[in-house]
Order: sequence, then C-alpha cells, then structure tokens
Amino acid sequence: MPPITLPDDVRALLAKPNPATITALKPDGQPVSVATWYLLDGDRIHVNMDEGRARLDWMRNDPRVALTVLDQAGWYTHVSLQGRVVEIADDPDLAGIDRLARHYTGREYRRRDRGRVDAWIEVDAIHGWGDLGRAAGRSAAG
Amino acid sequence: MPPITLPDDVRALLAKPNPATITALKPDGQPVSVATWYLLDGDRIHVNMDEGRARLDWMRNDPRVALTVLDQAGWYTHVSLQGRVVEIADDPDLAGIDRLARHYTGREYRRRDRGRVDAWIEVDAIHGWGDLGRAAGRSAAG
Repeated sequence: MPPITLPDDVRALLAKPNPATITALKPDGQPVSVATWYLLDGDRIHVNMDEGRARLDWMRNDPRVALTVLDQAGWYTHVSLQGRVVEIADDPDLAGIDRLARHYTGREYRRRDRGRVDAWIEVDAIHGWGDLGRAAGRSAAG
Repeated sequence: MPPITLPDDVRALLAKPNPATITALKPDGQPVSVATWYLLDGDRIHVNMDEGRARLDWMRNDPRVALTVLDQAGWYTHVSLQGRVVEIADDPDLAGIDRLARHYTGREYRRRDRGRVDAWIEVDAIHGWGDLGRAAGRSAAG
C-alpha cells in the first residue's frame, strides 16, 4: 500500500502537541498500545523511544503500527492512523528526543543518561472523527 | 494466559471517565486504534460499538485487543492493558451504551436510531506509567 498524503485538517491536528497512543505488535501478534509523544515530520510521523523499550524489537519484527491522536481541546475529535515504521535510527546526541520534548514541554528532554532511538512512520490509512467530519455522532462512544 | 486481578491504583484510574484508545486487529494483522469510552465492570472492561463498526468483525475474527487509558488529570499517567474480547452481545434496548454515556456525559446516549453492540474484555497484562509508578521518567516520551 503506498503512503498517503495527509489532508489539511488532519495535518493541522497532527501539528499540535496532542495526547496520542501508539500500538505495536508482539511477535505473536498481540497488540500493545502506550501513550506517546509524536511529531509530524513532512508526511511521516516521528517518534522516539528509550533504547530499552521492548516495542523497538517488535517494530523491527513487524513494522505495522497504529496511532490515535486525540485533540487536546476535546478527544471527541481524534484521528486514527494505520502505518508502518519505515526507519529506525539511534539518537546518540538526543537531538530527536529533544525535538519532541521541545514540542511538548518547551524545553530539552530532562533525562540525559539513557540511550534513545528515533523511528519514522509512513501513514497508509487515516480515519478522522468528530470535527474532522468523517463520522457522525459522538465517536468515542464506539 | 489467565486473566489478572487489577491492582487498586489501576482500578482507581480505570474507574474514572478517562480518555482511552482501543486497538483491534484487521484479518491481516494490521492494528487499528480508535478513541473509545470504556467502563470497568468487575475485572473486565466494558465497551460498546455501533453495529456497523468494522472492528466488531475484526474482534470476532481475532479477539486480542490493546487499550490505553490516559489520566484525564494529565496523560503522563496512563495504563496499558493487553486483553481479549471474551463476550459480544447485542444491546437492543441501548442499556449498554446508556451506561457508558451516563458515565462520560451524565445522561443517556443521544442517538437512538442505530443498533449497538456490547463487548467485554478480559485483561491479561497491564503496564502502568507515571503516577502508577512502574516506569521512570516522562513515559509519554516513549
């Protein structure tokens, strides 16, 4: 599946430091989701992990991920992204996590004694809800 | 894997009408996550869906799901749940969605013209972050 170009309203939501979750797949296929910082980087999504995170291995094993980004102004509006991790790279000078930390907290990442790893996600499909106008009703109801 | 008993601090977080996401698996294994209302029901998690949701079929095909529940007071604190959908049942009188709607909005679910379906999730594993004390640092950093 070729990556998609993000529509402007989705791009606007993704540009903000919103709460988000990312799901990776364990080797047996069990999904595991956690909260995550993310940053829109062109048409890709940039995330960063502690080098010890098990989901780094999981993403290397199966690159398919899901993200849900909730509008900080009200999670009635949110966007679901299906994608693949297309690049994983060490972050030796912490430039990657600092970029994310500045976006979310306005300053560099506090913890400097742990190795960090960057990952970039290509988006294959999106579904917008609430003010993104692609579904009726209070979508968080399910 | 037998279902687990939820620790008190996780139970306290889950008892609140917090923002949450749920991930289901498409037949090809691609994870898809969306925002969801949920309700703690004993040691199970109760969710409810519009009868037309594709993920109902996905859950029937593969019951494995992931949930992440974010503390409304600050998503630095959140809990990740791995589990399985163990029961799916029609909600003909909308009692299920009304129960969730009252929990989140204080009133019955507004939309009455669509069929709804209840599902219950048994929890196999949990990971707590932030104030739940099982991880150091700003966990949403990744």
